[in-house]
Formats: sequence, C-alpha cells, structure tokens
Amino acid sequence: MAKYKMILDLDTGIDDALAIAYALAAPEVDLIGVMGSYGNVLTPVGAQNSLDLLELLGHPEVPVFLGAQHSSTTDHFEVMPVSAQIHGVNGVGEVELEPAQRKTEDQSAVDFLIEAAHKYQHDLLLVPTGPLTNLAAALDQDPEIANLIGHVTLMGGALTVPGNVTPVTEANINQDPVAADKVFRSSLPLTMVGLDVTTRALLTTAETQQWRELGTTAGSKYADIVDYYIDAYNVTSPHLGGCALHDPLAVAVALEPDLVSTIFLNMKVDTQAPFAGRTIGNEAKINDPATHTEVAVNVDQTRFLAEFMDKLTKLFQAN
Amino acid sequence: MAKYKMILDLDTGIDDALAIAYALAAPEVDLIGVMGSYGNVLTPVGAQNSLDLLELLGHPEVPVFLGAQHSSTTDHFEVMPVSAQIHGVNGVGEVELEPAQRKTEDQSAVDFLIEAAHKYQHDLLLVPTGPLTNLAAALDQDPEIANLIGHVTLMGGALTVPGNVTPVTEANINQDPVAADKVFRSSLPLTMVGLDVTTRALLTTAETQQWRELGTTAGSKYADIVDYYIDAYNVTSPHLGGCALHDPLAVAVALEPDLVSTIFLNMKVDTQAPFAGRTIGNEAKINDPATHTEVAVNVDQTRFLAEFMDKLTKLFQAN
Repeated sequence: MAKYKMILDLDTGIDDALAIAYALAAPEVDLIGVMGSYGNVLTPVGAQNSLDLLELLGHPEVPVFLGAQHSSTTDHFEVMPVSAQIHGVNGVGEVELEPAQRKTEDQSAVDFLIEAAHKYQHDLLLVPTGPLTNLAAALDQDPEIANLIGHVTLMGGALTVPGNVTPVTEANINQDPVAADKVFRSSLPLTMVGLDVTTRALLTTAETQQWRELGTTAGSKYADIVDYYIDAYNVTSPHLGGCALHDPLAVAVALEPDLVSTIFLNMKVDTQAPFAGRTIGNEAKINDPATHTEVAVNVDQTRFLAEFMDKLTKLFQAN
Repeated sequence: MAKYKMILDLDTGIDDALAIAYALAAPEVDLIGVMGSYGNVLTPVGAQNSLDLLELLGHPEVPVFLGAQHSSTTDHFEVMPVSAQIHGVNGVGEVELEPAQRKTEDQSAVDFLIEAAHKYQHDLLLVPTGPLTNLAAALDQDPEIANLIGHVTLMGGALTVPGNVTPVTEANINQDPVAADKVFRSSLPLTMVGLDVTTRALLTTAETQQWRELGTTAGSKYADIVDYYIDAYNVTSPHLGGCALHDPLAVAVALEPDLVSTIFLNMKVDTQAPFAGRTIGNEAKINDPATHTEVAVNVDQTRFLAEFMDKLTKLFQAN
C-alpha cells in the first residue's frame, strides 16, 4: 500500500490525543511528525502530551517539533479557562501519563513542515487541529509550499453554525484570526472540518467503556482521558448528548474525503471585533471559481463512528 | 397544466418588480395576489408600485393587499438611505409609471394569506422577498398555516457569505430579525434563497438593452428601471459586475427547485446586537433531522439567466 505522509499540527488536548490514535491506527498513514502548537494547553505541555501518547501507543519513533507559543499578533498566550475545563489543566483530563523517553526535536515545527513539503510534495497531508499560526508562519517563510503540500484538512471554524467561543467564532480560529485568514486566502488545497460537522460526530461513555474493558494500559488511559472530556461536554454543551470528535474527524476526512459532503467556496476570516475569527465566504470572490477550498457541511456520522471505534479499539488492544 | 397558486410578499422595489414579471411570465403560475410590505420603500408606495406594474404587464386582475408598515418590534419605519440609493426614492428607479386604475384591497395582507392557506393548502407557494413581518404575523394569528402552505421560498439571509447591511446581516432579515426567527423556527417547509446564491445571479445592461429594443412600453420601462439598479450596483458592489437578481431568483427556485443546490439545516436568526439578523444553523438542533428547512448554497446561473431572459423578454414583447 502506498502510504500517505501525514503531519499533525496539534495543541494536545483530548481530541488531539484521539487524532494521534486515529492516525497511528490507520494502515494507510505514515505519520512522519507532530507539530506542537498552543491552544488547549501551552505549546510545551501539548508537545509533551504528544510524546507521551505516541509512546503509550507504541510509536516512540514519531518525532515531535515545537511550534509557535502564541498567536501571530500577540507576544504572549494564556490558556482560556474553558480550555482547562474541557481538557483538564494538563490537557489530558488530569490523567497521569508515563513520561516519554523521547524528547522534542531541535528543529522548529515550521522548518520541519517546510522541509517535508519540499521532500514529499503532493504525498504530504497536513492536518492542523489547533490555531493556524504555524502554517501561516510557514507560508510567510516559504510561500512555495502552498503549491507543494498535497492537502490541508483542518479542524476549525464554523460556517453554517455558530461558534463555540463567541456566536461567530470557533476556538482554533479565534486564537489567531489573522493567521487563519492568511491560510484560507492562500492557494493551499484545503478542506475545512468545522463545527458544522464535528458537533455531529459524538462519542459517549458507552464507547469509552469498551476501551476500558480491553484491560490494556492504552485502553484504560484513553477511557479515563475521554471520560473527562465527555463529562465536560455534559456541562458545557448538554444539548449534544456526547463529546464532539473534532480532531479525529479531521484526520478521518483527510484519508476518506467522502465521509463528509462539502461545498466549494472561496473563504476568508474576519479579523476585526466583534466578528473576529468568523470563517465565511469571501464576497469579493463569490463569482470566481472556487477550486481549492472546500467546507464540510454534513457528515456520515454512523460510518465515521464505526471506523473510529474499529481503528482505535484495535490500537488500544495492542497497547 | 395544473397551476401553482402563488402569493408574492413584496416591498416593491426594483428586483421585486422583476419578481412580479417572472411570476406573470411563468405559464405554470396562477398569481393569486401580492402582499405589500415595508422595506425598499414604505408599504403604500410599494403596493402602488405593484399595482402599476401589474397593469403595465397586462394583469390588472391580480389583487394587492396592504401588509405591515413596520417591523414586529418597532412602531415606525423609515426607508434606509441605501435602499433609496439602490431602488430610487419611488422604488422603481425614479421611472414614472402610469398609475393603475385598480386600488389596493380592503382585506389585510395577513388575512388574505391565512384565507389562501386554508383554501389552497399544499398547492399554495408563498414567495416573500421583503421582511418576514407579514408571515410571522400570520403564524401568530393562525399557527395552523405552518402545516397548510405548500412551500415558502424566501429571498433573504446569508449563510455562507457576509450580509449586505452589516457583516452578518442581509437587508430583508435585518428589517425584522424577530419575525424572521419565528418563521425559520416554525414547521413551514421553507427554502432560503439568500445572498449565497442571489449575488451569483447577475444582470447587466447587455440584457436590459434587449428589452429596450423591443420597442414596447413594458420593455422600455423595465429597461430604464433596471438600468437605475445596475448603476447603483456599480457604485455599491462594483466587484459583482452587474446587479443581483435577488427576488426573481426566489420565484424561479419556487418553481424549479433544482436551479439551486441546497443543504438541509435547522435554522435560527440571531436577534441580539451585534449579531442581530444573522441567519445561521441552530446549534441546539444540529443533531435533529433537518427535514423542512433548506438553504440554497449554489445556483446554476447560466440556466437561470436563460430562463429569466426568455420569460421576461416574451412578457415585455407582448406589453
């Protein structure tokens, strides 16, 4: 099987932890690296979580690279209280993970991405599930990568539904609207997997209980981590009746685009209050052909959940 | 041919004038009445325009009913300067029309709609192209009509693109967000034809010149009226390169739904500043089946423009 080269850009984070597991469990994926971002947690905390989870899941060979520590328009970042509420202060639901033996790489996340874009070109799939600061910085440093990377499938934004930070803004895009605007207006082939679809991809304790019953370390740790997330969702979004599988859905869509239905639309991101962070069609390009930017507007939840459970359960069984 | 019974709810208005022409020119339509609303002009001004245009187009038998004079949450309405800029102070591009012999009916627009809903039930198509104040008032007065009317195809809102009054609000919905919210949350079978598609359906002076060359009164008057609108668009929306055929597109979609591609979505309208008037998915119903509310997200412009020109040119030729 010809494998996809995949890079995840994560602020790990509970659903980021599920994205790592999904990528590792997908036989068609060669996960060549994880970039670290700020967002759900501080960048070093998220990167350490990524290292610990990769080792827990039997893949200590995957390198982790430190990325931006704050947005492109600020010089400081503090975790929002709601992030800590949803992911725990440590980002993994206050569950204690065995510290990985491997450390983060010396190379920066941005340099790693640019190098990989030139090396793998159209075989490279990038899945950012946090702020788009690293990707925008890479575009600034080497605009050519917009024509090299095979596809970007990002978790972020909200087109047809309200945001989760303000009525118009989703959390990842909200962290750095200027960076997101640059990414959306670039010529990158891009699929937006936003709240439009991720709030339709839900997990409940019925599923995490299956992992716990595997009797493995990975199954038990992931069950505890995700139960924290489900409990938080029951408080913050009781109408959903489960937790949203934001980040793993983006990985799944990167591999199987037909899990979602999309519309092609030239997009932009509002950068001025009170609309800052809104992902919306670019009215100035409404009559230009939209050929490289797709927005997912519906999802086959049943098929996704089946694939998600099949992959993760097998992975957790072996670890 | 079994005919549709159609009611237009208009704030006439230049593109409303085109909606009247489209409905009269469609052989499958029996236009049983026009409801008058405030918006582009004051209600009595728009109703008089409707009467004058119906007579100009050879259909003085169509009755016009006066509706709301202001929104459901105010007791007064003044035309916005931008409306006068786009439609002219008189609503028809400062073109003088022969005053119709027929007057507006004594029955109110709301009473007429309720009566028609009971009489024609699923054969009734309602096309509101102004504020939704009349329809919301009818729902208040007789909630049963939500289950009687065959289909509502409304021009208004913006889901995937910015608004035209504020970054989040389209003009019709902006006039009365509370009424619009009531309509969108009702069980009415509804298709939203918003800026998402209407700003992709453009007319230029190349087409109006064809009407002028017909040498008929209707062709000449409509060419003058629409040229005013095209000139205004060249000032307010130069990026479009033409005027948007908002209201006639809604009539066309009511008759031929497959002119547009749609997504099914349970919708709501924000009613609080700074987001008031935004049409957006209802996150509380994101996982409920969306069975009766569709939003048009793309349009076959070429086919629509061909049908539009074919119908209107024939009508103007005969009048």
